[in-house]
Amino acid sequence: MRIAQVAPLAESVPPQLYGGTERVVSWLTEELVEQGHDVTLFASGDSKTSAELVRAVPQGLRLGGVRDHTASLLVMLEEVRRRASSFDVIHFHVDLLQFPAFRHSSAHCLTTLHGRLDLPDFHPIYRAFPQMPLVSISRNQRLPLPEANWLANIQHGLPQGPAPSNVHKRDYLAFLGRIAPEKRPDRAIEIAKRAGIPLKIAAKVDPADQDYFDHVIRPQLNHPLIEFIGEIGDHEKRDFLGNAIALLFPIDWPEPFGLVMIEAMKEGTPTIAWRRGSVPEVVDEGMTGFIVDSIEEAEVAVRRAVELDRTAVRQRFEERFTASRMASSYVAEYEGLLEQSAMMVPHPWREADASPTPLNLMVTAPKISGDGASVSAFHRPI
Amino acid sequence: MRIAQVAPLAESVPPQLYGGTERVVSWLTEELVEQGHDVTLFASGDSKTSAELVRAVPQGLRLGGVRDHTASLLVMLEEVRRRASSFDVIHFHVDLLQFPAFRHSSAHCLTTLHGRLDLPDFHPIYRAFPQMPLVSISRNQRLPLPEANWLANIQHGLPQGPAPSNVHKRDYLAFLGRIAPEKRPDRAIEIAKRAGIPLKIAAKVDPADQDYFDHVIRPQLNHPLIEFIGEIGDHEKRDFLGNAIALLFPIDWPEPFGLVMIEAMKEGTPTIAWRRGSVPEVVDEGMTGFIVDSIEEAEVAVRRAVELDRTAVRQRFEERFTASRMASSYVAEYEGLLEQSAMMVPHPWREADASPTPLNLMVTAPKISGDGASVSAFHRPI
Repeated sequence: MRIAQVAPLAESVPPQLYGGTERVVSWLTEELVEQGHDVTLFASGDSKTSAELVRAVPQGLRLGGVRDHTASLLVMLEEVRRRASSFDVIHFHVDLLQFPAFRHSSAHCLTTLHGRLDLPDFHPIYRAFPQMPLVSISRNQRLPLPEANWLANIQHGLPQGPAPSNVHKRDYLAFLGRIAPEKRPDRAIEIAKRAGIPLKIAAKVDPADQDYFDHVIRPQLNHPLIEFIGEIGDHEKRDFLGNAIALLFPIDWPEPFGLVMIEAMKEGTPTIAWRRGSVPEVVDEGMTGFIVDSIEEAEVAVRRAVELDRTAVRQRFEERFTASRMASSYVAEYEGLLEQSAMMVPHPWREADASPTPLNLMVTAPKISGDGASVSAFHRPI
Repeated sequence: MRIAQVAPLAESVPPQLYGGTERVVSWLTEELVEQGHDVTLFASGDSKTSAELVRAVPQGLRLGGVRDHTASLLVMLEEVRRRASSFDVIHFHVDLLQFPAFRHSSAHCLTTLHGRLDLPDFHPIYRAFPQMPLVSISRNQRLPLPEANWLANIQHGLPQGPAPSNVHKRDYLAFLGRIAPEKRPDRAIEIAKRAGIPLKIAAKVDPADQDYFDHVIRPQLNHPLIEFIGEIGDHEKRDFLGNAIALLFPIDWPEPFGLVMIEAMKEGTPTIAWRRGSVPEVVDEGMTGFIVDSIEEAEVAVRRAVELDRTAVRQRFEERFTASRMASSYVAEYEGLLEQSAMMVPHPWREADASPTPLNLMVTAPKISGDGASVSAFHRPI
């Protein structure tokens, strides 16, 4: 199948540092190539992929210092539109900006919504373009927009990777992510103190959250059980999570998915998580972790987590949360779209693609071979 | 002529408080109606106009607490597209979001760019959609994008209003606008102190500029010549400007137009302005003000400003900067577009308007008569 993946441009695919959406797009893209599909990835020029890469901008916009991404995204979408007839399916990961230009091509398009949907700012658009098929990443994510055009609910997946080793000495609880009020690191600290078990906090502090860190969290770090180790890279996560008794995920917001829960699961590590957002859909209660509603329940859960079968946790990960499972779920939806649109005459691309004016900006470089990636660039700095 | 005016949604048209673009859209719209055109204004529901009002959202988004305007704007643009065949010309004031949906209709479209163009974030889009006709508000504004598709340069205009009275006692310099580093209120204070003339500062302080106000400006306010009177409303501006010896406009950024200069001119008040952005195109040196490059030059200019003929300043305003002149300039461009597109067959709307799916969101209310405004609403809160 000829598939286009259209990534956000904030970070490269995969991202150099943070960037949940770009990581998922990378895992999905690589897995689709692995499964034999003809995949084109629209992303920033510093992305790395075994698919064909169309470089929409030279580098990820955040590290490139571009604050407003709208123009870059619209230009990428225009390039996608002009190449649309080369694809059977176009899979967008950029929220809503593509709706106007692809309104005639909805039969070939799919949009995964990666963010929270409880902010009303965005609601009008889903009603104005009701034909655009949407994919949620949890059932809970849909709640604010139950009547949108939901085609499927597809949970994220990770590359399966090697089985976790069994030689770890597990003597601490883990908190991994951002220091932010809605992530509730303060709850994690309280749970650890009550349980008398060390807590390691591996987290970055965004500028927006510096005040919260300085005034709420930093004063609590001066305790023998609490260790703040700062931001860690992807390659350190495996040990950090795999060596922990449990991941604490005491969130206080409608988390649309929560990748870190399945990253822990992959290492055989259970999660103790608050009953918010996607949590009950990701954690199998009593098997891959515990879902709690209070500090007291969390304290009990920490003691029970030691007894969970870590091999079963890993097995559940392999059953439910691999990139392979995610890719197969998406392919099933792509095929469903193709079957439906095969009944339509004429091919809906034709109209969308009928631009009277050539887009003279778009200079396509010859394909570059080498390290498995072919690259075409249409970005020209102005 | 059947004309659509498409306003930003941040503020109502005209705005309740600040909002330069929305003020200009209001003046242009009212003047076009006055000149006998059939005008439809797409704007927030709390707008007031003698044109037909299409209410894109219930109220201006900033005061309505909506932070991300993208979805609301795209929905409004979709409504414009669906009604496009009712208009001879569509005039956009919303920057760039309309380019994808109206790429086939560029012959009937016009976009006035109201902001600065020296930030590279937005440059890619003007190259990707080179067919979209653009209007600048100063020649200087164009400098970062000289090769964009500039159709015309049309300076802003104000309603002419009554002639300024001549009974004012003029004994102070005026600074009007925002307290912000690029507006350089510190320069205004220094000029006043050197000249020994009182300065009245009528300005709001945005949250983003609170630090600058507290640390740079506030310590300088404790001086017998300096008076900070805070934010003033539109109705107070006339006296504030008309009673001043001169307006100080010591900017340090590429101001695309600078409405306050022509607001002063309307009251017969000259402007002393730094040579940045649009200033040399707006101020007639030695007639409606002085253009300077230093504090020393400004000090000299202040003394000379008293000698300027205020009737001549007002007369120059009437010649160059009325809403009537602005509207006539736009109508000339609209007519140019119509002549060009009349040579095209088929009518370019047809394709753009050929949506296979009805947009079931759009509920058009019956026209409401009363106070000269007819209103249709398509917004439904979700």
